[in-house]
Amino acid sequence: MTARPAPRATTHPLDTLFSPESIAVIGASPEPLKIPGLLLAFLRKNGFAGAILPVNPRYDEIDGLRCYPSIAAVGRPVDLAIVVIPARLVLGMLEDCAAAGVRNAVVISSGFAEGGSDSADLQGAITALARRTGMRISGPNAEGFYNEPRRIAATFSPTVDVRPEAPRLIATPRRLGIVAQSGGIGFAIYNRAKAMGVAVSHVISTGNEADLAAGEVLGYLVQDAATDVVLLFIEGVRDPDNFVAALRAAAEAGKPVIVCKVGRTSAGERAAASHTASMAGWNAAYDAVFAAHGVIAVQDIDEAVAVAAAFASNPRPKGERVAVVTVSGGAGAWMADTLAGEGLSLPELSPALQAEIRALIPSYGSARNPVDITAQAVHTGGLQKIVEMLVRSDEVDLIAVVVSLSSETRLPLKPEEIGPVVARQAKPILVHTYTLPSQFSRDRLGGAGIVVHAGLAAVGKAAGALVRRAAFVPTPEGAAAAPLVTIPPSGAATGALSEHGSKQLLRAAGIAVPDEVLLRDRVELDAAVARIAFPWAMKIQSPQIPHKSEAGGVAINIADRDAALAAYDLLIANARRHRPDAALEGVLVGPMAKRGVEIIIGTLRDATFGPMVMVGLGGVATELFRDVVYRPAPVGRAEAAAMLASLVSALLLDGFRGSPKADVDALATLVAQVSQLAAGLAASVAEIEINPAIVHPAGQGVTIVDALVVGAPA
Amino acid sequence: MTARPAPRATTHPLDTLFSPESIAVIGASPEPLKIPGLLLAFLRKNGFAGAILPVNPRYDEIDGLRCYPSIAAVGRPVDLAIVVIPARLVLGMLEDCAAAGVRNAVVISSGFAEGGSDSADLQGAITALARRTGMRISGPNAEGFYNEPRRIAATFSPTVDVRPEAPRLIATPRRLGIVAQSGGIGFAIYNRAKAMGVAVSHVISTGNEADLAAGEVLGYLVQDAATDVVLLFIEGVRDPDNFVAALRAAAEAGKPVIVCKVGRTSAGERAAASHTASMAGWNAAYDAVFAAHGVIAVQDIDEAVAVAAAFASNPRPKGERVAVVTVSGGAGAWMADTLAGEGLSLPELSPALQAEIRALIPSYGSARNPVDITAQAVHTGGLQKIVEMLVRSDEVDLIAVVVSLSSETRLPLKPEEIGPVVARQAKPILVHTYTLPSQFSRDRLGGAGIVVHAGLAAVGKAAGALVRRAAFVPTPEGAAAAPLVTIPPSGAATGALSEHGSKQLLRAAGIAVPDEVLLRDRVELDAAVARIAFPWAMKIQSPQIPHKSEAGGVAINIADRDAALAAYDLLIANARRHRPDAALEGVLVGPMAKRGVEIIIGTLRDATFGPMVMVGLGGVATELFRDVVYRPAPVGRAEAAAMLASLVSALLLDGFRGSPKADVDALATLVAQVSQLAAGLAASVAEIEINPAIVHPAGQGVTIVDALVVGAPA
Repeated sequence: MTARPAPRATTHPLDTLFSPESIAVIGASPEPLKIPGLLLAFLRKNGFAGAILPVNPRYDEIDGLRCYPSIAAVGRPVDLAIVVIPARLVLGMLEDCAAAGVRNAVVISSGFAEGGSDSADLQGAITALARRTGMRISGPNAEGFYNEPRRIAATFSPTVDVRPEAPRLIATPRRLGIVAQSGGIGFAIYNRAKAMGVAVSHVISTGNEADLAAGEVLGYLVQDAATDVVLLFIEGVRDPDNFVAALRAAAEAGKPVIVCKVGRTSAGERAAASHTASMAGWNAAYDAVFAAHGVIAVQDIDEAVAVAAAFASNPRPKGERVAVVTVSGGAGAWMADTLAGEGLSLPELSPALQAEIRALIPSYGSARNPVDITAQAVHTGGLQKIVEMLVRSDEVDLIAVVVSLSSETRLPLKPEEIGPVVARQAKPILVHTYTLPSQFSRDRLGGAGIVVHAGLAAVGKAAGALVRRAAFVPTPEGAAAAPLVTIPPSGAATGALSEHGSKQLLRAAGIAVPDEVLLRDRVELDAAVARIAFPWAMKIQSPQIPHKSEAGGVAINIADRDAALAAYDLLIANARRHRPDAALEGVLVGPMAKRGVEIIIGTLRDATFGPMVMVGLGGVATELFRDVVYRPAPVGRAEAAAMLASLVSALLLDGFRGSPKADVDALATLVAQVSQLAAGLAASVAEIEINPAIVHPAGQGVTIVDALVVGAPA
Repeated sequence: MTARPAPRATTHPLDTLFSPESIAVIGASPEPLKIPGLLLAFLRKNGFAGAILPVNPRYDEIDGLRCYPSIAAVGRPVDLAIVVIPARLVLGMLEDCAAAGVRNAVVISSGFAEGGSDSADLQGAITALARRTGMRISGPNAEGFYNEPRRIAATFSPTVDVRPEAPRLIATPRRLGIVAQSGGIGFAIYNRAKAMGVAVSHVISTGNEADLAAGEVLGYLVQDAATDVVLLFIEGVRDPDNFVAALRAAAEAGKPVIVCKVGRTSAGERAAASHTASMAGWNAAYDAVFAAHGVIAVQDIDEAVAVAAAFASNPRPKGERVAVVTVSGGAGAWMADTLAGEGLSLPELSPALQAEIRALIPSYGSARNPVDITAQAVHTGGLQKIVEMLVRSDEVDLIAVVVSLSSETRLPLKPEEIGPVVARQAKPILVHTYTLPSQFSRDRLGGAGIVVHAGLAAVGKAAGALVRRAAFVPTPEGAAAAPLVTIPPSGAATGALSEHGSKQLLRAAGIAVPDEVLLRDRVELDAAVARIAFPWAMKIQSPQIPHKSEAGGVAINIADRDAALAAYDLLIANARRHRPDAALEGVLVGPMAKRGVEIIIGTLRDATFGPMVMVGLGGVATELFRDVVYRPAPVGRAEAAAMLASLVSALLLDGFRGSPKADVDALATLVAQVSQLAAGLAASVAEIEINPAIVHPAGQGVTIVDALVVGAPA
């Protein structure tokens, strides 16, 4: 098939960069095996229709093209200069380009920030030049880009080295745009996507991002009319505001964004840091941003390509019920396990539908789901008919077809029959071959609009991603900020506040904290007795004693006035012994909390994305099983509720083993409040931690037992 | 390269089946597109050197071969009959074969147990015939087998449909044997392994296993001198004794066994059950058996093949330290994340080694690890030299090489240089291409003994599997049974025992339980006061009240005689109210347990593999996070300790957050004791559950707080 024609893009400032009419190749060379020579060759071989302007004082002419001694000598406006010269000459050349009115430059040359401090200065100078002159610069250390609809190969990647007459297999109606901070990976994804028949709009490598960074390029692709699905490979985001705005725009436009974020482990981070001078950053924050915007995170290159291919070729599923249709029982069972492992359900088909199917398969097949048609029913043509039945049925939302496509001469699926079913785009139909697909199969089925998935785990991930992305509801901007709290005019002091000070800050924001009394002296005890009902919890208060229990600073189940007096003296004495220099604010007196589920709520500021809120089950679950979830702060009540639902521990809140259901509404409200407070005080508060909050049965609210607010360094 | 020549197999009863000298094809046909025709054609095309004897009364001759009207008419001994005739005729034909002295039969015909009850009877008759006559029968519903060293293609799988002159790429020095209950998957794995250049010994599909089952075939491949690595695809094991014996033999012989077990989810199980009439079984028991014998479990087909290829081409790593050498920074970072995710460590290389490496790469590369040599150093030949340096170095145990092998004309790795390094087999060297490999690359590198891995996740799994398998120490048979317990002569009664009865059984086996007194009447209280120090725990005892707390049957922290009397009356009254018909044994009195980590220990009998022992952290961790581990019972102390170490909760036993280290030795002993008791009483005890056992600080032992023994139905 052919992908729909790329619509004429609406005008965007980066159009002259990624869809240029004229390209100067600075450092152009006739040597066919070196990078400058490859660039020129690929540009021509792919059939760029605009002006190609080689610039190199060493040549008058290259391969039939006039070669200019300098960019100034070109004497006409140039949309794009591709710069492939030694690093030390780049800055001067960029100045010349700007002076000559070149609109954009892609700097291929390497040896800048990734090489150490001197070269980092050079990269800073490029950044400054871009800001000063307005010329947009991609790179340095970039591998360039490829615009497939317009066949602009502004790259030396061997993956665009095509024979001009070679047919390009296009199996998807929608186009994939690829952005990568690593050109090697960006073009490898292109190479693999192309083999699967995925139509592509752009492949853009961003290199060291002295000026143009991945977030802005993502934004460009999201608004690009030719791009329907975006795949991103990143090591660290340098322009988080652009990045988040682009993700929001993609969610609103319904364009799926697939991201592979590397540098997740210390070795990966070391690798990312040393080769592109990027900060890999704190991955929980990335995952939180991805989750907030419905981004599909992938971990593997086959998975990335399979997921992209699935989005480029399928409509949204309406639910998570999948039918497996297979010619091999074993392969069908494996697919069933794989899909169920992705959280999809495989309902047993209704007796009526099973009866219809059984009429088309041998007695030793199965119509239950997986539908095992057996190798026999391939020959009798049952496969297509059964797929059509499942498309018409309201019992399933996706269909996975499992066949063997290794033959170079025969197909178990008739393209002329299955093609129109797929083209109707009524339901996602994913075709997997357990043997390796022959080129014959790929070509014939691809021509009918059918993508062949050779990977089992990968097609499972793709099915899961289709379902999860379809279920994602973007948070309308502003909804999260529906004010649940009042931002106190004065934020935190420097350093950590005591529990009492922390709770005062929460109370000032309108967050419910228990009625408590701070005893600054034992003579204040009677006032506390009059106000707080026994039994009490009593806790020493000092900014220097954050771990009160370990300091012997906590007494619980205090039953009466005498016990309270004794406890007061004991706590003060313990604190003085534990930390003689601590400034003691006094002893905080409060009621013993009712029972419930212990939860931890926290906020922190991520260096890249700003304030984040976290919630998880308290105690062992947090530390041992990491059953916590993060989102960018602020969140609204609905998003907070979604965070809670994503915890494994959510079961504990939902009436686990006969206990009453917990007050999840109150907890979600508290999470949203804390997130809003953290966002509102982002300049002055580094962290808020509520640990534990005790969630009582439904309708009975949440008790903040302990709280800690840490001020931001000035 | 060529795999080492397949050594002459020592004599094994199944040799005449899988390496026959003569093959009768019963139902042979000249029709080239039907199964009988394909079988005959593939047998001849692949060059089977023995006698091929078509049997079919409809033909006198097929394609130049004499065709016999019946098996009796063949008139000579036949090693193997391949039966491809309608199901209803199979049994009579097998009788004829047995009568004619045919040694073995492979029944390809379908429509037996997988079709329902009538055909299941037919399958039972085949089983009986095999037992009675001694003729070994593989199938029915099998896809046959392929013996690669002897080129015996006794299958209709199109994956063996080769042009006789086509060269077979062999990149591994060791051979892979494949056993599959699904012929489709077995030959698909062969198809994929072949494309990677993996040398193969046998591909054997076992079908419905009326006689010969997967466990016995696994045993055959383990003893087969031509087979070095075994890959198994199973839905459920029908001959568990053979299976476990084969796994034990494989572990002792140092032959890695890779298993994909499907039917892990309800839909997968439905699929497995309906198409091969196998019971998928309880997967935790399979995983326990795999873990006990060092089996590598895989979940995906690419992973299965990559892991097999890695074992067939690499020596054992001596540790888990890996160096990544990459031509692309991004691809190197991705590989680093992938390997670290598998639990491998990527140490930063020493300054001395880094200096050596830096001499071979540009300034903007990195020598830290990942070693980013940049595309530049490919041209200068640094890649081979750096790999050699890393092979010589004692800083790493494995090497992952990350390159782009998409070119049809050029290679970044010089086969003549890297081949000898790989052939030395000093360390595992895994080569991954982030672009799709060209056939040129596969052929050239494969010829030099280098397997090309195109999958990133898959090669990561392969590296992890190499390291984990190398670290596996098989349990010497018998060591597990070093008697830590005495098996009581009389086992459990029917149904569940009370806590007291359960603890008596444990005590009789020599397992330490707390000193407790069963009060059958309140007049016995003084004897208990004299024997058990306060404070007490008191618990109602009745086989009909297993959940004592919920029945109001537990009182704790009983401080003195008066409180004990009151508690006794209360517990009896509560029990009568809760369950008026319960037989009350009395009230069990014991000391309050000291504090510690709560653990659950359990045993059960798996329908396939028999007694299993389980241990996990008690409470929420068990139920919510499934942090439990199973092994086949019995286990010895060392295996029990390894079970404990594999828990996420192991951190809690190891002095978590400043708490003292727990008495892991005592806990491991208890787990071993309980497992041995369960194994010894397997005929009469269905389950033992100790919940909780409280593990005290090191040297202070374990307290069994509660226990439940459930007798087996007679």
